[in-house]
Amino acid sequence: MTTPVDADAAALLAAARTGERSALARLLSKVERGGDDARSVSEVTHALAGAATTVGITGAPGAGKSTLTSALVREMRSVGVSVGVLAIDPSSPFTGGAILGDRVRMDEHALDEEVFIRSMATRGHLGGLSVAVPDAARVLDAAGMQWVLIETVGVGQVEVEIVGEADTTIVVVNPGWGDTVQANKAGLMEIADIFVVNKADRSGIEETVADLERMLSLRTGSEWRPPVVQTIATEGRGANELWSAIQHHSAWSHESGEFERRRSLRLDQELRRVVNALMAAKVEELSGSDAWERARREVAARHIDPWTAANELLG
Amino acid sequence: MTTPVDADAAALLAAARTGERSALARLLSKVERGGDDARSVSEVTHALAGAATTVGITGAPGAGKSTLTSALVREMRSVGVSVGVLAIDPSSPFTGGAILGDRVRMDEHALDEEVFIRSMATRGHLGGLSVAVPDAARVLDAAGMQWVLIETVGVGQVEVEIVGEADTTIVVVNPGWGDTVQANKAGLMEIADIFVVNKADRSGIEETVADLERMLSLRTGSEWRPPVVQTIATEGRGANELWSAIQHHSAWSHESGEFERRRSLRLDQELRRVVNALMAAKVEELSGSDAWERARREVAARHIDPWTAANELLG
Repeated sequence: MTTPVDADAAALLAAARTGERSALARLLSKVERGGDDARSVSEVTHALAGAATTVGITGAPGAGKSTLTSALVREMRSVGVSVGVLAIDPSSPFTGGAILGDRVRMDEHALDEEVFIRSMATRGHLGGLSVAVPDAARVLDAAGMQWVLIETVGVGQVEVEIVGEADTTIVVVNPGWGDTVQANKAGLMEIADIFVVNKADRSGIEETVADLERMLSLRTGSEWRPPVVQTIATEGRGANELWSAIQHHSAWSHESGEFERRRSLRLDQELRRVVNALMAAKVEELSGSDAWERARREVAARHIDPWTAANELLG
Repeated sequence: MTTPVDADAAALLAAARTGERSALARLLSKVERGGDDARSVSEVTHALAGAATTVGITGAPGAGKSTLTSALVREMRSVGVSVGVLAIDPSSPFTGGAILGDRVRMDEHALDEEVFIRSMATRGHLGGLSVAVPDAARVLDAAGMQWVLIETVGVGQVEVEIVGEADTTIVVVNPGWGDTVQANKAGLMEIADIFVVNKADRSGIEETVADLERMLSLRTGSEWRPPVVQTIATEGRGANELWSAIQHHSAWSHESGEFERRRSLRLDQELRRVVNALMAAKVEELSGSDAWERARREVAARHIDPWTAANELLG
């Protein structure tokens, strides 16, 4: 059941666990690169992970997620817990543009040894975002971070799926949100454990809260009723209430069995995604091979049919 | 290189080739069911297929594709060629609703032995539409139909992909089409070998034709300039011009090498899809197995990591 462990990854993890930040950064870079690099990291981190609680944060671009995350981190640090933050940018191969601007707002935490913030790009990763993010969260977890915040840029399907698998999921909206996330409203309603209406000093706040409460009252299938927290992240207002809401949800989740249920589901999904990623890699590899070219020619000459050819290629 | 051939499928194909329509219908039902049934059909049809020319017909719902197809079939029958028609409905498990209504318009061909029309649903087929349609077209081809028309209901991504792989692809629009297919305009421009503006007696016809011609003049990368044919399918007007355009494109395609290039590409795509379908089936099978459950438990207990578990499952 054992495979040879990458000595480099193991050494990096040992260093990261003593607080060496550059080691942690290098582990995450390996995850971003994907392939054997990512796998070697997973091999050493998985055994030591599981203690951290993950919090997913999603919402439409411009909702103020980064500022809110920064305010939340400040709140969490005030009670002494360690926090890792993954900011996910699905499209960019580099940390740039809006994300970089957002990161600047988190500069206040740059000198705090118990906070680790990383913008993550995943282009080139074999299994894409949905495989890379659990891998990266596991690095922060195994390195000893007690909480891992996973912040996504937008509300695309994959992003919603990823944050929906966190132990606690926060959906951030603004007054008048209905127009901006119309397409994904149902998906967001489904995954939210906590709603945040950020920029609560803007007009339309009462209608938005009422709108959310009404929709939440129609929600069935869970004993948890997501609270609606109002924040003004730029001033840090409401961050304390949000942190309380997260702890409440976490406590309820453990008591109700939801925590175990969700982790089990997440594990199953992750295993399935990794299997699919390996399968896809095999197809890619196959499609460039001599055997593929031979099979193609045999099919073109109508000596064999595609199904038989495919079976032989996979055989 | 040989696999045992399904005696039933072989007998059905032999019967279909002598003109027995019920045998042809049963072969297509096997393709719709997917799995081993579809595979057994592919095994016997592939060796005998390749002579038929395929024509893909797509366009927004309501553009009049079925009526146009029917008028086109009448035109083709007037010169004595045999025609098979596949009307693809990606969502419905049955032939119903709009499609059934559409089919009624084709009733005029019901007693013609050289025309075979089939509405096809593919729910439940392993590889979905993109695997089932080539399989079904191959049945009509191997059964001796000289032309195979493949008509899709809408302009979704998969449908556009499928008809784009036909030997000749027709995109049907109406005056004022811009609004109805906005999202997919670029995709439609790319696949069209022939544009049809149906319902040409409606207002806006001049603007629509001018709009198309302008967009087509910007098209690069092919020596073929798609003609814009105006039709009023309900009256059969323009069907003759469309049939001429199809023959022109077909002749050009053979001369220019485009025909061979496209068939080769289609074959490669098909092989890839079948391989992916078999892979997906394997993942499905795996995910319900005892081995999967054991792997999941091992991962949950953190004895092994997901990548190692996935590799062992696939090993």
